[in-house]
Amino acid sequence: MSKFAMYGKFTAHPGKGDELAKILLEAAEQSKDFDGCELYIINTAEEDPDTIWVTELWRDVESHDASLRQEGAGELIRRARPLIAGVQPIKLRPLGGKGFDRSN
Amino acid sequence: MSKFAMYGKFTAHPGKGDELAKILLEAAEQSKDFDGCELYIINTAEEDPDTIWVTELWRDVESHDASLRQEGAGELIRRARPLIAGVQPIKLRPLGGKGFDRSN
Repeated sequence: MSKFAMYGKFTAHPGKGDELAKILLEAAEQSKDFDGCELYIINTAEEDPDTIWVTELWRDVESHDASLRQEGAGELIRRARPLIAGVQPIKLRPLGGKGFDRSN
Repeated sequence: MSKFAMYGKFTAHPGKGDELAKILLEAAEQSKDFDGCELYIINTAEEDPDTIWVTELWRDVESHDASLRQEGAGELIRRARPLIAGVQPIKLRPLGGKGFDRSN
């Protein structure tokens, strides 16, 4: 069973980055209770406040997939959708390092 | 004082991704002792083993900058350089979420 990581790039419509970031921070709040979610950090790109990057780390890809079916996810997606011009996920195989295990 | 985050994208020369990832894992091992380093995770892109992404989170940008001047960093950079075709950093302003603070 391998860990799964993802950088989720969200491009907001012009001027809508702040509002989108707030909704994603709500999603991050929910993620704290998700089984298998190890990291879910919301960032804005230094060069462009309308580009939001979500840093995700999961125990396995199954935990990630299950999270998308959780109660509450649908409602947040519905609120976020009108703010979003594009989404581009970068899927990753995490190998190790600081923060890879909760103990280090 | 704001936290600082970065995704570092390293493109290895064809077939050199594994070797580069090993050197970056050594850098990650060093980073465990760096003051202000909160995350330093090495990943390969799911679609391309010659693309390595480093997920970094720092207490502040000064801690990040100081780490590049640490003893040992120069030696790793010297070993990694011949393997690297390109580097592209994505600089981020982290806002919050799971893993943003060590306590959650």
